[in-house]
Amino acid sequence: MALETAALSPENAITTDAVVIGAGPVGLFQVFQLGLQGIQTQVVDALPHVGGQCVELYADKPIYDIPGIRACTGLELAERLQTQAAPFKPSYHLGQQVQTMQRLPDGELLLGTTAGTWLRSKSVILAAGVGAFVPRALKLDGAEQLTAQGQLHYHPSQRNIGALAQGQQVVVLGGDEAAVAAALACVGQAASVTLVHRRDVFTGPDALLAQMAALRSAGQLQVVAGQSAALQQSADGSLQALEVSLPDGGTQALPANLLLAYLGISPKLGPVADWGLALERKQLPVDTARFATAEPGIYAVGDINHYPGKRKLILCGFHEATLAAFAVAEQLQGQPPMLQYTSSSSHLHALLGVPHPGD
Amino acid sequence: MALETAALSPENAITTDAVVIGAGPVGLFQVFQLGLQGIQTQVVDALPHVGGQCVELYADKPIYDIPGIRACTGLELAERLQTQAAPFKPSYHLGQQVQTMQRLPDGELLLGTTAGTWLRSKSVILAAGVGAFVPRALKLDGAEQLTAQGQLHYHPSQRNIGALAQGQQVVVLGGDEAAVAAALACVGQAASVTLVHRRDVFTGPDALLAQMAALRSAGQLQVVAGQSAALQQSADGSLQALEVSLPDGGTQALPANLLLAYLGISPKLGPVADWGLALERKQLPVDTARFATAEPGIYAVGDINHYPGKRKLILCGFHEATLAAFAVAEQLQGQPPMLQYTSSSSHLHALLGVPHPGD
Repeated sequence: MALETAALSPENAITTDAVVIGAGPVGLFQVFQLGLQGIQTQVVDALPHVGGQCVELYADKPIYDIPGIRACTGLELAERLQTQAAPFKPSYHLGQQVQTMQRLPDGELLLGTTAGTWLRSKSVILAAGVGAFVPRALKLDGAEQLTAQGQLHYHPSQRNIGALAQGQQVVVLGGDEAAVAAALACVGQAASVTLVHRRDVFTGPDALLAQMAALRSAGQLQVVAGQSAALQQSADGSLQALEVSLPDGGTQALPANLLLAYLGISPKLGPVADWGLALERKQLPVDTARFATAEPGIYAVGDINHYPGKRKLILCGFHEATLAAFAVAEQLQGQPPMLQYTSSSSHLHALLGVPHPGD
Repeated sequence: MALETAALSPENAITTDAVVIGAGPVGLFQVFQLGLQGIQTQVVDALPHVGGQCVELYADKPIYDIPGIRACTGLELAERLQTQAAPFKPSYHLGQQVQTMQRLPDGELLLGTTAGTWLRSKSVILAAGVGAFVPRALKLDGAEQLTAQGQLHYHPSQRNIGALAQGQQVVVLGGDEAAVAAALACVGQAASVTLVHRRDVFTGPDALLAQMAALRSAGQLQVVAGQSAALQQSADGSLQALEVSLPDGGTQALPANLLLAYLGISPKLGPVADWGLALERKQLPVDTARFATAEPGIYAVGDINHYPGKRKLILCGFHEATLAAFAVAEQLQGQPPMLQYTSSSSHLHALLGVPHPGD
């Protein structure tokens, strides 16, 4: 297997020395370490925010094994790392996945994202963790068409919900905090609001659940325990109702012209698997000196890589990103960079924008 | 080369699963990672405090490349890591160097320190950095004897100086902040105070140097620019005077019965070099999966080890200590430990003494 080749680069491609795929904690620290090497970075992530898995899966859960930080939540860690990387002014391309990666005739790498961004780079560092975090899809005939025509939205953010729901018959799918919060946000805007979850059990902060109970009692929010079974569409394809299988074996058709689906977000390796890289069990073998893959100019750090002794821990990713940054610098400069210390180097102090003792 | 063997272990030896040599940042994080594996640790360090090089060389200088910590001084980092390791109740043996390391007939390791502590352990993790930080010695005939009889002290701490100097003719050797502060601390306590440095140039905070100038003007502190040349001792060996070579080629004898030497603290690999380990250019080659040396049960992490791609960075040592902890756990248990996450594992929450969600 090898990377596909591309004849030439689109005219609007951003030219850069380094692209980091994945803005999780390891990707963010990769930006910082490349910055210490004097390398500015383009960062792409499928999520609309930085932090990756850390923010998706344990935003408010404490992590205890980040060296020197007794406890911090996933969200705090992401914020700390983003702040630390900020002096190096990375360009973030968020809410888009890298879809294609090809080799240009001069050896450089050409990446295209789902948002139509093109990046042309000398190096690519994959910090893609267990893959891109993408919403779990509603597996019913016609669902893709509904998404295309704007009647089915996956995990819309809270601030967009009011406008979406205006005057609509809304069905919200899901049982977690995000689903409950979305249903409550529709009340007062929508013509009707129904929350569908396989069991009449919902999770979220007590205050949110109490508010939900009050709106149910007041008849402003309907709750149905059941499984989505089918979509009823009119001849022109527009949504009419959602059929739900009930626990007693029956079926109920819920009138609907807008579906908001909160079925969970699961990581998918996604397009990475299609680029011709030598994956082994969904992971990229790397050496432990440079964290380079078998493809020249392509490095892999964090949960996506594999080497003898590998442990999927954030702090190991920090080390990997550091050695990868040295390797990228060597690739770009043609010679190994000198090791300098942030406690003493005037060069690094200038890059970081911090005072240098004696200046 | 191989480790010496010992016939049997002293009766007063402390029996343990793991000894960490070196209480610098990497040694402290080693304690934490061994703790997560359920292993309690005995820690030995030559310095009288934890933090190692971090505290000796840049206690008050900011470090910028600890992941997730935008800036912290060496002292802060040491304190943070000590706090993080505290739940695992390590036993610290400070102010003493491991002098001997031998192999017992059953394969366990026997360590003896300069303070007479004996440790018998299944594993030893060397986190000894560039070596033990030991004060540079006064290289004059008779100096060792003076140390033994309490008339020569290397880098005594500020709070002991008043008691030491009481009524004495004190000569302080050195030109840095510690030397100046020591000389000032003697004024008013000692019968006389002379500060000797090769040049009449001293470093330290402005306020300290101003105070020094005032005491010189008042005749309470004498300063001599010159090099220590010889010790004058009475028949019973007690110190009478220090002979100093002056820049003009002459000699001056300074009456003295107490010498306080601040000649710098320099790292020395020290006894490690004598244990029969396979050192290469003062470093221990290790593999990158377990950070094990060629000697069974002996691991090396941080600045003392070497492997392809090695960079002497604290954050790399954190990774090395983590994989070494997994390797030690495997050595002790006979099988690879499961990877658990501090964000979710009830087992780790119990070890850390933190609340587990749902308890």
